[in-house]
Amino acid sequence: MAQQDRAIRTRRVILEAAASVFDDQGYDRATIAEVLERAGVTKGALYFHFASKEQLALAVLEEHVVDIAVEPQKIKLQEFVDAGQVLAFRLRSDPIQRGAARLAVEQGSNRLDRKRSMLSWTRFVEGLLTEAKERGEVLESIVVHETAELFVGAFAGLQMMSHALTNQADLCYRLTVFFEHTLPSVAVPAILAKLNLDPERGAKLDAALQGKVLAEAEAETGADASADADVALH
Amino acid sequence: MAQQDRAIRTRRVILEAAASVFDDQGYDRATIAEVLERAGVTKGALYFHFASKEQLALAVLEEHVVDIAVEPQKIKLQEFVDAGQVLAFRLRSDPIQRGAARLAVEQGSNRLDRKRSMLSWTRFVEGLLTEAKERGEVLESIVVHETAELFVGAFAGLQMMSHALTNQADLCYRLTVFFEHTLPSVAVPAILAKLNLDPERGAKLDAALQGKVLAEAEAETGADASADADVALH
Repeated sequence: MAQQDRAIRTRRVILEAAASVFDDQGYDRATIAEVLERAGVTKGALYFHFASKEQLALAVLEEHVVDIAVEPQKIKLQEFVDAGQVLAFRLRSDPIQRGAARLAVEQGSNRLDRKRSMLSWTRFVEGLLTEAKERGEVLESIVVHETAELFVGAFAGLQMMSHALTNQADLCYRLTVFFEHTLPSVAVPAILAKLNLDPERGAKLDAALQGKVLAEAEAETGADASADADVALH
Repeated sequence: MAQQDRAIRTRRVILEAAASVFDDQGYDRATIAEVLERAGVTKGALYFHFASKEQLALAVLEEHVVDIAVEPQKIKLQEFVDAGQVLAFRLRSDPIQRGAARLAVEQGSNRLDRKRSMLSWTRFVEGLLTEAKERGEVLESIVVHETAELFVGAFAGLQMMSHALTNQADLCYRLTVFFEHTLPSVAVPAILAKLNLDPERGAKLDAALQGKVLAEAEAETGADASADADVALH
């Protein structure tokens, strides 16, 4: 069990190192040697988890999508806004999010399928918007798939612009401006009036989520420790 | 004069070849050798106009911004929509637009200043929106600079997504969806009702503009010919 934990941790360290190299260098210029150096692991450890640079990039792109989960809210559209703001906030510092964003944005001189990442995000947004529409939060005129693709495409551009101009420092604010311009055409008025579009929300939610993850990890460790103690008693 | 014309034409041929290489390969992988091959010019001719790959890229980025000029309209916001739709249409086939888009989107592993292109576009959009606001077409609550940056950033992302999914075939349609979602938050209602957001508009306007450029070129050639004739008479 402890060995498995260590393997999971090592995998994560390698993934974060790879993501930060992709973020700085782009896919083409990234080298396994630099990933090894940043991760501080051996070649053997890396190749145990990932067969190639391409596998590393695909893993970064996958990790990226799985990473956004926000607290349930009374209004589904608020969860949608929250997911966007948490992602925008994490793009400032989370190596996985930053690396994945760059990989997704770069045009296909490499063999990575950039469509995958865009389609996964579209599915994610589409799921939230469909639920919101079923609850009557979204205007009848909205074609959910079109609106979902619009959000994903526009977000990619906004993060690119924010990266170029301020290294993502103003991305949460840009996202608020985007929501202010688009949500009046998406939400029914009574819901629109209740949405919280505060650009600081991403930071607060992220802190709360990190706290929760930590608490859960501690609870699990506690459980494991007592399980181990049980075993020791027998 | 004829020699100068030829130089201008050669410069344009090289620029288009370079843009198409940047579009296909990205900046890092692009080589002068491939530009020479596609342009069908000598090394000497290329270096007469451009000192380096970087100079070529900067020239492509500059050409790109200068290229969009639409017919004046009664409603200034319509000119704004039209400029967007013409650009979206040209991104399907115009090598300069495609090459410039890729150069602007790629993250700075090269020394190109990607900010320049974004800031030029922002100034362009800001100019149109400021005029529209002065005429009372834009809601008082709009902060023109924020809205301009939103349009430029979101457009970059939409063209990236359209490129990845359909090689730009659906970009005009995506832009219409974007306008439908945002213009109700930008335009005053009476103006909004009069805007033509037809995704086919870009193709029609481009054809009209190309026709106009051709007609002007022919008129100029005619004028030159008679000027030459005048000279010959003396």
